[in-house]
Amino acid sequence: MPARTDPDAFLSLLADIVGPAHLLTRDDEVARYVADWRRCYPGAARAVVRPAGTAEVSRVVAACAAHGVPVVPQGGNTGLVGGSTPDASRTEVVLSLSRMAAVRSVDPLDNAMTLEAGCTVLAAQEAAAAQGRLFPLSLASEGSATIGGVLATNAGGEQVLRYGNARELALGLEVVLADGRVLQGLGALRKDNTGYDLKQLFIGSEGTLGVVTAATFRLFAPPRKVVTAWVAVRDAEAAVLLLARLTEAVGERVTAFELLGRQAIDQVLAHGVAGMRDPLGGSYPWAVLFDVSETSARLDPAPAVEEVLGAAMEDGLVADAVVAASGPQAHALWALREHVPEAQRLEGPSIKHDISVAVSRIPAFIAEAGAALEALMPGIRVVCFGHVGDGNLHYNQSKPPGMPDAEFRAREEAVHELVHAVAARMQGSISAEHGIGRLKQAAFLQHKSPVALELMARLKRALDPANTFNPGRVLPRERLLPLP
Amino acid sequence: MPARTDPDAFLSLLADIVGPAHLLTRDDEVARYVADWRRCYPGAARAVVRPAGTAEVSRVVAACAAHGVPVVPQGGNTGLVGGSTPDASRTEVVLSLSRMAAVRSVDPLDNAMTLEAGCTVLAAQEAAAAQGRLFPLSLASEGSATIGGVLATNAGGEQVLRYGNARELALGLEVVLADGRVLQGLGALRKDNTGYDLKQLFIGSEGTLGVVTAATFRLFAPPRKVVTAWVAVRDAEAAVLLLARLTEAVGERVTAFELLGRQAIDQVLAHGVAGMRDPLGGSYPWAVLFDVSETSARLDPAPAVEEVLGAAMEDGLVADAVVAASGPQAHALWALREHVPEAQRLEGPSIKHDISVAVSRIPAFIAEAGAALEALMPGIRVVCFGHVGDGNLHYNQSKPPGMPDAEFRAREEAVHELVHAVAARMQGSISAEHGIGRLKQAAFLQHKSPVALELMARLKRALDPANTFNPGRVLPRERLLPLP
Repeated sequence: MPARTDPDAFLSLLADIVGPAHLLTRDDEVARYVADWRRCYPGAARAVVRPAGTAEVSRVVAACAAHGVPVVPQGGNTGLVGGSTPDASRTEVVLSLSRMAAVRSVDPLDNAMTLEAGCTVLAAQEAAAAQGRLFPLSLASEGSATIGGVLATNAGGEQVLRYGNARELALGLEVVLADGRVLQGLGALRKDNTGYDLKQLFIGSEGTLGVVTAATFRLFAPPRKVVTAWVAVRDAEAAVLLLARLTEAVGERVTAFELLGRQAIDQVLAHGVAGMRDPLGGSYPWAVLFDVSETSARLDPAPAVEEVLGAAMEDGLVADAVVAASGPQAHALWALREHVPEAQRLEGPSIKHDISVAVSRIPAFIAEAGAALEALMPGIRVVCFGHVGDGNLHYNQSKPPGMPDAEFRAREEAVHELVHAVAARMQGSISAEHGIGRLKQAAFLQHKSPVALELMARLKRALDPANTFNPGRVLPRERLLPLP
Repeated sequence: MPARTDPDAFLSLLADIVGPAHLLTRDDEVARYVADWRRCYPGAARAVVRPAGTAEVSRVVAACAAHGVPVVPQGGNTGLVGGSTPDASRTEVVLSLSRMAAVRSVDPLDNAMTLEAGCTVLAAQEAAAAQGRLFPLSLASEGSATIGGVLATNAGGEQVLRYGNARELALGLEVVLADGRVLQGLGALRKDNTGYDLKQLFIGSEGTLGVVTAATFRLFAPPRKVVTAWVAVRDAEAAVLLLARLTEAVGERVTAFELLGRQAIDQVLAHGVAGMRDPLGGSYPWAVLFDVSETSARLDPAPAVEEVLGAAMEDGLVADAVVAASGPQAHALWALREHVPEAQRLEGPSIKHDISVAVSRIPAFIAEAGAALEALMPGIRVVCFGHVGDGNLHYNQSKPPGMPDAEFRAREEAVHELVHAVAARMQGSISAEHGIGRLKQAAFLQHKSPVALELMARLKRALDPANTFNPGRVLPRERLLPLP
C-alpha cells in the first residue's frame, strides 16, 4: 500500500503540476465533471485536474499512483454507461483532458491527422475539412464528445458501415501509463508489424488501462455526392435483404443503413420539432434510412440505387421510397432519425438497450425479443431503431399506455435481462457501441465467458497493477485480486 | 519448474491425443516442418504433432505446458522471419495446424466466413468466390500460407490499400491459450464493445501468445471491373503525388498501388520468364503499377483514371502510361511485379528489407537511404519495389558488379543497420509486414522504445507466464524475467 500523505499536501502537489487555476475542488466548479450528463451517476470527486499537456498528465498520474489515489480520465463526459465520472466516495481524482484540444497536424498527402485527446469530434471534422479531407467519425454528441473519449469507448456512430469504428480509424496513439510513463506511438504508418500492436489494448478499454493523450487518425477523400433515401420496408427481413442488394450493387459506398420501427417514427412525429412530417404517406411497419456516398466527381451511384429500389418494390420488399432531391431534404430525413432519443424521452420513461447480432439474425432477434417482452409486460411499446448495417439495434422500450412510471421502472431489470438473454442466445453483444462502464457491468459479467473475463483481468493487472485507472469500471475490483 | 517425465512417455501422451499417425518424429517425416522454406533456420524438433481439431490442440498444448515443453505453432511455413519453425535444440514441439483446413461456414447475408486455421488463403478465396463473395487477402504465397499464419503475422499483401491487413479483416477468433483452455470468440459481429478486444492481442503476435484455431472474416461484394495501369513516373515523389490525385478522383477504389525502381524492372526483364517485356518503350527511372477496382456493374471508373493520368502527363509527373485492355494484359503487368523477388534471387545474393514510413516520406527515404548506401558500398544496386500506397517498401540490395558474394554477405549487417536507421529516423517501421520472429529481433530491440518493449513483455507474461509458445521469438527470453 503506497504511503498516504496529508490530503492537503497531495492536492497542493497536483496544483503545483497543473497550476492552482486548473485544480478544481469547489462543488460549483466540479459539478459538471462529477456526474454523467444523464445524471444517472451523481458523484463526488476529491478534485478535478485539468492538465495542459502530456507532460502534466504524466506527472499527475505519477503523483496519484504514488499516493494510491484513483484516477478517472474524462473527455467530453458524453458517455452513456457511467464510465468517465467519479463515484460518490470523494476519493477519486477526475483527470479532464479538456484543455488538451490542439490539432497537432493535418497531412493531406498521408491522409492522416494528429489530435490531442481533448479535441472534440466536431473540431476534428472541421480541421480535416479545412484541408479538403474527411474525418468520418460522426455521432450525435460530436459537438462535445472528444477524441480521447471516442477512442476509450471505440465509438461507432453513423458511418461505421463504410469507415469503421474509432478503432479502424486510429493509426497511432500517445498514452500515459499507470506509472506515469508515456507510450509514444503516434504517426501515420499504415503498416507496422514490429511486435504486439499495443494501441489496440487502449482503444475500447474505457480509461482502465491508460490515458490516451493524443492520436493519429486516417483521413479520406470527401464524398462528392450522397444519395439519401427513406424506404418503407415490408419487415425487418426485407431491410436486411435490401441491405444485401444495395451492397451488391454499390459495394462499400453504402455509408449508413438505419432501421426505424413504427413506434419510433410515431414518437418522433408526435414529439419532434415543428413541421416534422412522415416523408411517406400511409402507415408502414418499418422504415430504412440509408446513405450511399460517392467519392468520384465523375460517377453517380443514384441510377444503381434507384434500380435496386425499383426491383425491391417489384419483389414486395419495399412498399414505397423517397430519394432526397437536395441536401436540405436529406437533412430533414436524417433529422427524423436523430430525434428518436429525444422523442422517446418526451414520451415518458424508457428502458434502453444497445445490442448487436450478426446482421442476418436481426429479424429473428426482433421477433423473439418482441414476443417475450409482450408476454412479460402486455402492451409494452418497443422503440426499435439503429444501425442495422452493423447488426446494432438500439432496442428500447416505452411503458404500456396507462402504466404508472414507478411500476415500469421497477421492472427495468427484468426487461434488461430478457433482452440481453435473447441477444446472448444469438451470440450477440449486450453492448455494441456504448461500452460497459458501471451501467452494463452486471450483464457483462453474466454473459461474457469466464475465460474472456479472466484474460481481461490479467491484462488489467499487467498494465495497471495498482488499479489506479477507473477502478471498478468494466471489471469489478474483486476480479482483480492476484491469482492464487 | 514443471515436473518432467520420461521423454518417451511424453511422446506417447501426444500420440494418444492426435493418433500415432499424426505424431511425426523421423527425420524424413519432420524435414518439411523443422526448417523455414528459405532454409535460413535449419532446426530439429522433438516431434511434430498434427491435431485434427480444436479439442486436440487444446489437449496437446495442455500436455506440453504440463511437461515444460515449448510449442511452436506452424501454418503453411511460408514466413520470412523464422517465426514458425523450431530451433536446433530438438526440445521444441511443432504444432502443425495443417489438418485443420475446414471452411466452417460462408454467410453471404452477413458478408462473413468462418475458417479453420489450417485453411490456405487460396482455399479461403475460392470458398468465398463460390458464394459470390470476395475474400480480399491476397499474397504471393497464398497457395500455401494459411489463415492461422496470416493472422499470427497480420499479413498484408496486395490489396491492403482498399481492404486492410489481416487484422482489419478479422471479425472473431477461436484461440487455444497457454494452459490449453479455449477462448471462444468466433462470430460475425460488426460491433461489440464488451470489455477489452481480446482478439487484437493474438493477431500479429506470431504465435507467442496463443494458437489461433479458427477465425471469422469479413467478406465483400466482388469487383465487377478492375482498371490496371503501368505508369512511368518522373520519380518517387511523382508516384506519391499520383497516388494522392488518384485517391482524390476515385477514393477507396484504389486497391493496389505499387512502385518499381529501374533496377527491379531490369532484373525481371533479364531473368523473368520467357516473353516478359517492358510494357513501355524507352528508359524511365520508376514505374507505378496500380489497380482501381469497381464494385458496381453500372459504373466505370476508367474515364476518371484516364483523366488523372492525362493531367499528370501534362504536369510532368508521368512520362508514359499503359492501361490494360484485358484481363490477360493486366495479368502480364502484375506478373512483372510478382517476378521481382525471383529475378533478384537469380541475379545473385541480395540483402532484403521490409520497411515502412508515412507515405509522404517515401521520396526522402529513398533519397537518404540510397545516398548512404552508395557511400557505404559504392556501386551497390538498390532493388526498390513495394506497396507505396501503404508506405511499405521492399527496399533490397544486390551486390555491386564484380564484388565477390562472400564480401557482400559479410557486410549484410552494416547494410541492415544503415537502412533501418534511416527508417527509424523517419518514425518508420523496420518490419512493415513480415514480423519479427528471429530474423528481425536485434533490429526490433534496437529501434522499439523501452516502454513499448516492457509493455510487450508484460503482455507475454500475463498470457503465457511459462513461455510455452514460441519462446525466444519476438521477445528474447531474458526480457521475460519476472519484474523486480
